[in-house]
Amino acid sequence: MTNLRPTLSPLLVEQSVRTALEEDLGRAGDITSQATIAADRRAIVHVVSRQKGIVAGLPLLASAFRTLDAAMDIQLKFNDGDPIEPGDVLARIEGNARAILAAERVGLNFLMHLSGIATLTAAYAAQIAHTDARVCCTRKTLPGLRVVGKYAVRCGGGSNHRFGLDDAVLIKDNHIAIAGGVASAIEAAKAYCGHLVQVEVEVDTLVQLEEALAAAPDCILLDNMDPAQLIEAVRINNGRCKLEASGNIDLTTIKAVAETGVDYISTSKITMAAPTLDIGLDIEID
Amino acid sequence: MTNLRPTLSPLLVEQSVRTALEEDLGRAGDITSQATIAADRRAIVHVVSRQKGIVAGLPLLASAFRTLDAAMDIQLKFNDGDPIEPGDVLARIEGNARAILAAERVGLNFLMHLSGIATLTAAYAAQIAHTDARVCCTRKTLPGLRVVGKYAVRCGGGSNHRFGLDDAVLIKDNHIAIAGGVASAIEAAKAYCGHLVQVEVEVDTLVQLEEALAAAPDCILLDNMDPAQLIEAVRINNGRCKLEASGNIDLTTIKAVAETGVDYISTSKITMAAPTLDIGLDIEID
Amino acid sequence: MTNLRPTLSPLLVEQSVRTALEEDLGRAGDITSQATIAADRRAIVHVVSRQKGIVAGLPLLASAFRTLDAAMDIQLKFNDGDPIEPGDVLARIEGNARAILAAERVGLNFLMHLSGIATLTAAYAAQIAHTDARVCCTRKTLPGLRVVGKYAVRCGGGSNHRFGLDDAVLIKDNHIAIAGGVASAIEAAKAYCGHLVQVEVEVDTLVQLEEALAAAPDCILLDNMDPAQLIEAVRINNGRCKLEASGNIDLTTIKAVAETGVDYISTSKITMAAPTLDIGLDIEID
Amino acid sequence: MTNLRPTLSPLLVEQSVRTALEEDLGRAGDITSQATIAADRRAIVHVVSRQKGIVAGLPLLASAFRTLDAAMDIQLKFNDGDPIEPGDVLARIEGNARAILAAERVGLNFLMHLSGIATLTAAYAAQIAHTDARVCCTRKTLPGLRVVGKYAVRCGGGSNHRFGLDDAVLIKDNHIAIAGGVASAIEAAKAYCGHLVQVEVEVDTLVQLEEALAAAPDCILLDNMDPAQLIEAVRINNGRCKLEASGNIDLTTIKAVAETGVDYISTSKITMAAPTLDIGLDIEID
Amino acid sequence: MTNLRPTLSPLLVEQSVRTALEEDLGRAGDITSQATIAADRRAIVHVVSRQKGIVAGLPLLASAFRTLDAAMDIQLKFNDGDPIEPGDVLARIEGNARAILAAERVGLNFLMHLSGIATLTAAYAAQIAHTDARVCCTRKTLPGLRVVGKYAVRCGGGSNHRFGLDDAVLIKDNHIAIAGGVASAIEAAKAYCGHLVQVEVEVDTLVQLEEALAAAPDCILLDNMDPAQLIEAVRINNGRCKLEASGNIDLTTIKAVAETGVDYISTSKITMAAPTLDIGLDIEID
Amino acid sequence: MTNLRPTLSPLLVEQSVRTALEEDLGRAGDITSQATIAADRRAIVHVVSRQKGIVAGLPLLASAFRTLDAAMDIQLKFNDGDPIEPGDVLARIEGNARAILAAERVGLNFLMHLSGIATLTAAYAAQIAHTDARVCCTRKTLPGLRVVGKYAVRCGGGSNHRFGLDDAVLIKDNHIAIAGGVASAIEAAKAYCGHLVQVEVEVDTLVQLEEALAAAPDCILLDNMDPAQLIEAVRINNGRCKLEASGNIDLTTIKAVAETGVDYISTSKITMAAPTLDIGLDIEID
Repeated sequence: MTNLRPTLSPLLVEQSVRTALEEDLGRAGDITSQATIAADRRAIVHVVSRQKGIVAGLPLLASAFRTLDAAMDIQLKFNDGDPIEPGDVLARIEGNARAILAAERVGLNFLMHLSGIATLTAAYAAQIAHTDARVCCTRKTLPGLRVVGKYAVRCGGGSNHRFGLDDAVLIKDNHIAIAGGVASAIEAAKAYCGHLVQVEVEVDTLVQLEEALAAAPDCILLDNMDPAQLIEAVRINNGRCKLEASGNIDLTTIKAVAETGVDYISTSKITMAAPTLDIGLDIEID
Repeated sequence: MTNLRPTLSPLLVEQSVRTALEEDLGRAGDITSQATIAADRRAIVHVVSRQKGIVAGLPLLASAFRTLDAAMDIQLKFNDGDPIEPGDVLARIEGNARAILAAERVGLNFLMHLSGIATLTAAYAAQIAHTDARVCCTRKTLPGLRVVGKYAVRCGGGSNHRFGLDDAVLIKDNHIAIAGGVASAIEAAKAYCGHLVQVEVEVDTLVQLEEALAAAPDCILLDNMDPAQLIEAVRINNGRCKLEASGNIDLTTIKAVAETGVDYISTSKITMAAPTLDIGLDIEID
Repeated sequence: MTNLRPTLSPLLVEQSVRTALEEDLGRAGDITSQATIAADRRAIVHVVSRQKGIVAGLPLLASAFRTLDAAMDIQLKFNDGDPIEPGDVLARIEGNARAILAAERVGLNFLMHLSGIATLTAAYAAQIAHTDARVCCTRKTLPGLRVVGKYAVRCGGGSNHRFGLDDAVLIKDNHIAIAGGVASAIEAAKAYCGHLVQVEVEVDTLVQLEEALAAAPDCILLDNMDPAQLIEAVRINNGRCKLEASGNIDLTTIKAVAETGVDYISTSKITMAAPTLDIGLDIEID
Repeated sequence: MTNLRPTLSPLLVEQSVRTALEEDLGRAGDITSQATIAADRRAIVHVVSRQKGIVAGLPLLASAFRTLDAAMDIQLKFNDGDPIEPGDVLARIEGNARAILAAERVGLNFLMHLSGIATLTAAYAAQIAHTDARVCCTRKTLPGLRVVGKYAVRCGGGSNHRFGLDDAVLIKDNHIAIAGGVASAIEAAKAYCGHLVQVEVEVDTLVQLEEALAAAPDCILLDNMDPAQLIEAVRINNGRCKLEASGNIDLTTIKAVAETGVDYISTSKITMAAPTLDIGLDIEID
Repeated sequence: MTNLRPTLSPLLVEQSVRTALEEDLGRAGDITSQATIAADRRAIVHVVSRQKGIVAGLPLLASAFRTLDAAMDIQLKFNDGDPIEPGDVLARIEGNARAILAAERVGLNFLMHLSGIATLTAAYAAQIAHTDARVCCTRKTLPGLRVVGKYAVRCGGGSNHRFGLDDAVLIKDNHIAIAGGVASAIEAAKAYCGHLVQVEVEVDTLVQLEEALAAAPDCILLDNMDPAQLIEAVRINNGRCKLEASGNIDLTTIKAVAETGVDYISTSKITMAAPTLDIGLDIEID
Repeated sequence: MTNLRPTLSPLLVEQSVRTALEEDLGRAGDITSQATIAADRRAIVHVVSRQKGIVAGLPLLASAFRTLDAAMDIQLKFNDGDPIEPGDVLARIEGNARAILAAERVGLNFLMHLSGIATLTAAYAAQIAHTDARVCCTRKTLPGLRVVGKYAVRCGGGSNHRFGLDDAVLIKDNHIAIAGGVASAIEAAKAYCGHLVQVEVEVDTLVQLEEALAAAPDCILLDNMDPAQLIEAVRINNGRCKLEASGNIDLTTIKAVAETGVDYISTSKITMAAPTLDIGLDIEID
């Protein structure tokens, strides 16, 4: 099947873009353009990549322009997830000049941030492409930008961890301490949650791993283990659970971790502070 | 006068925190804690720095916990803008255990992100402390996080550029092209805007600089000039306008730029992708 | 461990109650009380059950009164999920008389509706208590009331199906038709989703069941099968997947379905039109 | 005059539908369709009645689909308030397949719930069609669904009671007790409210009825009176006020109540727990 | 009974005040106070009348200060509706100095505007106090300020017309033209609306008045009639309906209109452009 | 350059109009039209000036109609800021009759209020057209209507003061008292704020003026000075700062103030209680 790319809900896109535009337009709007550009002036602009990477955020870019002028003509030349090169024209936009200049910064801020995440995720994914492991994100995300950030991770070829506290169980050391042990915490979670909720448990040692496996969770997070420990964990697990490795993952360490045979490798680096991808807007005034 | 630190409006803090909590709690809330921790269990936690830097975001951290339990006892041990060391206890929080665990990630995401911005800004500021120049931000900010990001820049000792399109005029090349020249664009802006709006114009060359100075704007942005050009610009300006340098600024180049005698040096690096400052939460279950 | 009852997020409670109060207070507020009761009059009221059942919605009741008078004294005498008898005093509330009368209807509407759901769910659960099967809800819920409705299902001893389209995969006939078969749809879902998402597939026949089992989903929904077919499905499955039965479930049929050995039995009857539980408010004017 | 059917404000329709869609789409949207259906796949569906009744909610159904795809082609074949039979095609919808499947459940939840209310209201109305009495709703409505619920009551041929606490006065026993009697409460209400507000008073006995009539309210609610008492009340009133009967109304008792000569008969049964009308969606994949 | 003053819903007060504060605080908050006043400085202020009139809006004033500092100590010395003299201290407020200065303008803007409406309404009411007529408002109100404006009208001793399009019927010339006459429009309205909705019809001539009376509406609006016509209208009506006079009402004409015997006299002057009442804030820095 | 009229952001227009429509439509919508006008009836209306003045608010008028019927055909015949005469047709609107009547009042309320502000501002501006001074507004504005009010001031030829507490510094007596003098307050403000924030200081005497000038603010507000003092202030300033006069400004005094040579003259009269401009809607029923 083709064309199975993720879609962002229009509800979410519109709300995120609206919030960002309100933040930028403030009360009086774009006073520079009002002072210097006629109200009915039109313009054509091209959104152009200045850097090599993976693009993400085009629907948000389009929404920023359309929100300020419903009649704006917007032609997207790429899909989110596509690789781009410096000089690639990502979009051609034609419409009211004041509206274009007012939407420019918000549109580019989304596009540069999300393409930055997608590009960094792809770099991690490339390091482990020869294994079955997948890089995934965490709940360490920028406040208010989680959903679009996780979408960009998927665009970059990464996999998503849970979206919040409510869509999967992740039992950590504090829960275990209170619940009286790994096994009783896993059992409590299974009893409490419905059949469509995955239960994952975090373990720090191989002893905890064996204790956890006995209670049959869906996934086990191996926290801060070195490759030698991870290899042993994979051996002990013997395919019973999905295994996720976490802790001290970066572009230089991820390859060795993936080669231990774990299924998922999670890192907050791809969502919390990915460098932006440089993308600009070139104007043709018609 | 002492204690002139910036304050974030409680309206803004509450709204930002609420958005982030809704994003994390989703529909069913923290199901892991509901499954494993008794509804009336209490806990004490310490928010502890793991890295050296400048702290920013404590009011947002406090609000995250208080929003989920109005009776939460929160003691902040530092103020935003303070330098912190690894091991410093930034806050002590006591209250309902489920509420603490549900608020933890959101509170830390704000604190780690904003402290990262403040810390990076302080690093830039330290490079130029021997000059009169100040480092400042731009409108390249993460969507929805502009106001808190700019606040963190101030906490780190930076200065703020305009907050949006409406609170100051910044005339760029496109405006100049349409308005028919630097001088006419500046005049149009002065005629259009009230007396409490600053007018800045961006110039790329020393020829444009002279043309701009003739029209007496409040500030001039010198875009992508090298130190030699900047020194000449400062000489030509001779104190008439505030001068801002921009383009290719990083921790290695900012010193030379500041020593040219410009007043402000702007960079998007401090707001778009500052590395997070590592801060954790240590739980004492009472 | 004790006291592992579900908690509703205060964010959600406040928002739901606020919406309902706005709907009832309109623009001018409670004009009857304004016309007939002095602005500073106080009152004491008791919320009293008039029917036997399971209570659910007390935090929403409390929030309705507190939202209109932050100083209201509210004593809840039961917890959600508790069985109640006619005459039981569920809460004692003391405060401003106008605020009490203005909040009464909204508080009771939530309490009567959610207790109705919990009571009906408990009736279904009682029919199958001798088996390992659990009754669960669906996405057929009243618009805007899904989260509180599913919470009431848990209070009544039921289990929750997925909360929306985004927290679990449920592959139905239309998806299968487009994806080119059960197996390829399951594989596509596994490839697309992260490791913390359950994949369930709906099958109508035993042939489809075998095809589905080959692709190893997490759960299988057996749609509209009679007990004989369900027994055969349980035999074929042989513990590999969780099995959910659906279709034509009511209080008279659920027992036979549960006795086939399926794990979950889902019905929309408990959320879409459960009869309300009769609960009233008796006023003592002090 | 023809075509005097009620219209729901587009503001209200859009807001209600948006809330319900957000509840269903959550953060990641319809992950099943994203995983199994191509992003640009199109489909045609028919919304088909499976049960006999009165339809209500078609504008909400249409809005659900249009909100997720502004270009969706929607043809409504009936108007709200029309009688429908099993097999009737209520709407034909053509558009993006992912958007159709994402909107389906929300659209049907509104339609099935509101058609259920309209159908039950029509059943009550049919019982009393030989009299001048009309069945009407109360303020016992599902939280957040009052306006659409009352609209469905009108679609079913019922009449609406007040919409909230602010659009009419209803003096109950508590108000009377505080105000010092029926007459003084009615006078207080008339003095307080403007000339465009109706004043109704609730009475439990014929003695109270006479006392109330002396103060000339607009309407009197006769609470929990049996047919014999109601006949006497109608005689005493002698056309001076509109009379509303309330308490213990169901499909078997309403006829006798209507035949006493009262003008309105109110019941919460039609809004709080009306059985849904079964309506489905049949897909043709083009 | 005493103390029957109107109350504004806290939901409405909080929302209105929040909107106004957001409008004033913008993104960076009160930068003047942040620059010149220490973060923990405290102050005491008095809200003082500078003009004679009727006060309205004190709950909104209080809410403005409390919203920016939950611990603010606020003592209101008057109730809305009270007459005030120049020099009267309306409130004493003590708290954080930055929060006080940030809330000042919003609090005073509400208080000055609403007290202006109440004062002007009282002036109209004083002109007609020797009659049974009452002055009332219309739907010509400032956008977004209708509910507080109508509340201020009540504080000034005026009566309220309908709050919106939905709480009473007002049949105007356009409706009559389409409905085919006064009588058929009134009948249509009675048939359509529930028993708790008043039906008023607007007439321009005595001929229309007689036609309207035959259809027995609840009220009749006599539009733009001179006193002689109004006297005749009162005679014709003979107590059957409530009569409202409208058109060309000002402080010099209202007395003659009231003396014709009409029941209500409506004017938009009291809500659309009432002069503000001058009220200031005197600071004592502690 | 032509056509440099201000534009209101569509985000702001839509939000303001939506709030006002919700206030007017309430829960049940326009019940009069629903009762008397067929659901599919169409109408043509003209918005007609009844008074001479300056028009402002046409985009808000258009938005009110379009929000209730996206297919409404709206032709605006004037631009905001244009002079209008009695009888001028400002707009022609054709569409669904119910939607037109439901939007009428909200559209006209905006248009009459904002045109009133523009017209009064133009009257002030006309008094001082022979000087270089400009009339400007203040932060004394109607709550929730600041941005549209300030826009109307610009349409009337006035200039805008700051939009809120955050876009410019205005140091008043209280700040000076706390900061320890005019000079230290100005220095604190310059040190705190970025380079794109203007600093204005309020002075009451010529002594304070000289003290202020020494600290070189951007603007000085001369509060409550008579023309003789203002002439002296202008002489002392000698072009160093922009000067703003404030206090006791009305249509009879502004000319003398302007002739003193000050740059700006501010008054709250143009925003807080400008008389409305009379504008009506004439219906042609097609």
